[in-house]
Amino acid sequence: MYEVELKVRTDHEPVRERLAELDADPQGLVEQVDTYYDHPIRDFAETDEALRIRRETYEDEESARVTYKGPLVEEASKTREEWETGVDDGETMADILDELGFAPAATVEKIRERFECDGYTVTLDTVAGLGEYVEVETESEAIDPAREGAIELLHELGLDPDEQVRTSYLGLLLDADA
Amino acid sequence: MYEVELKVRTDHEPVRERLAELDADPQGLVEQVDTYYDHPIRDFAETDEALRIRRETYEDEESARVTYKGPLVEEASKTREEWETGVDDGETMADILDELGFAPAATVEKIRERFECDGYTVTLDTVAGLGEYVEVETESEAIDPAREGAIELLHELGLDPDEQVRTSYLGLLLDADA
Repeated sequence: MYEVELKVRTDHEPVRERLAELDADPQGLVEQVDTYYDHPIRDFAETDEALRIRRETYEDEESARVTYKGPLVEEASKTREEWETGVDDGETMADILDELGFAPAATVEKIRERFECDGYTVTLDTVAGLGEYVEVETESEAIDPAREGAIELLHELGLDPDEQVRTSYLGLLLDADA
Repeated sequence: MYEVELKVRTDHEPVRERLAELDADPQGLVEQVDTYYDHPIRDFAETDEALRIRRETYEDEESARVTYKGPLVEEASKTREEWETGVDDGETMADILDELGFAPAATVEKIRERFECDGYTVTLDTVAGLGEYVEVETESEAIDPAREGAIELLHELGLDPDEQVRTSYLGLLLDADA
């Protein structure tokens, strides 16, 4: 299963109006705090991998999960293979990674407002230190049709797929620091 | 918090009788399949650490957790610091470790029959390829009194603390293979 995801930097308000016109289904607000880790011997910036612990708050419920993202398999749509599982205790998982020689590299904090629309998830992200973004995302075994549908949906939302931001929030924050 | 644990190799039947006489509280049967991992650059046999995914079946419920055990802090009682958290999906956690360069090193399968007795957990272990063992275990911030209590309880169960097996099941299985 591949994750297909397109992201643009844009003010949320006009997009929220278009989503209402398209009868998109609101999924509520989620707060996410992501900690990204350095591998003890691999340079993830070089190998284009990522290891993350995500702590999430949704309707006052806290949860955590650990995610590994492999290198890009398709550059245009930022498609990569991803493994993710929930963990009971995010702090303990962080301690285990620490003991194994993984070091926290960066933290990304954001508030996400999600909508379901035509088989895609549309997310209005407000990212600490970066501002407002919109993501269109789906999971599929077939990359090309999924990507074409995502581009079409961006158009319907009044957004320009050519303004796609290929850099992750993590990458944008690290660039801003540099 | 430290784990204090003493283990002897012995037939279960006489111990089960002593546990009944001591009014120990039966906790049921658990089946555990443990996969131990090699670190990509550390030799855990040298550093005396362990990383494990445990898949457990208890009353038809399956669960999984990931555990890191640090080096021994006290040789006599095999005391070490331990971090553990439940994970929703043991297979995915295994995939993530695999992608990060951890390799499965060995598997330990056992059936455990647990009793609570005077603040200690007494476990009758039947280990695939090794046979029957009894473990007396507790968690404590104070190692010495916890260890003395465990020795006393072993005596009450008709067992000889001098016959303590300090090698883990993993170590015993690796020795048997060697």
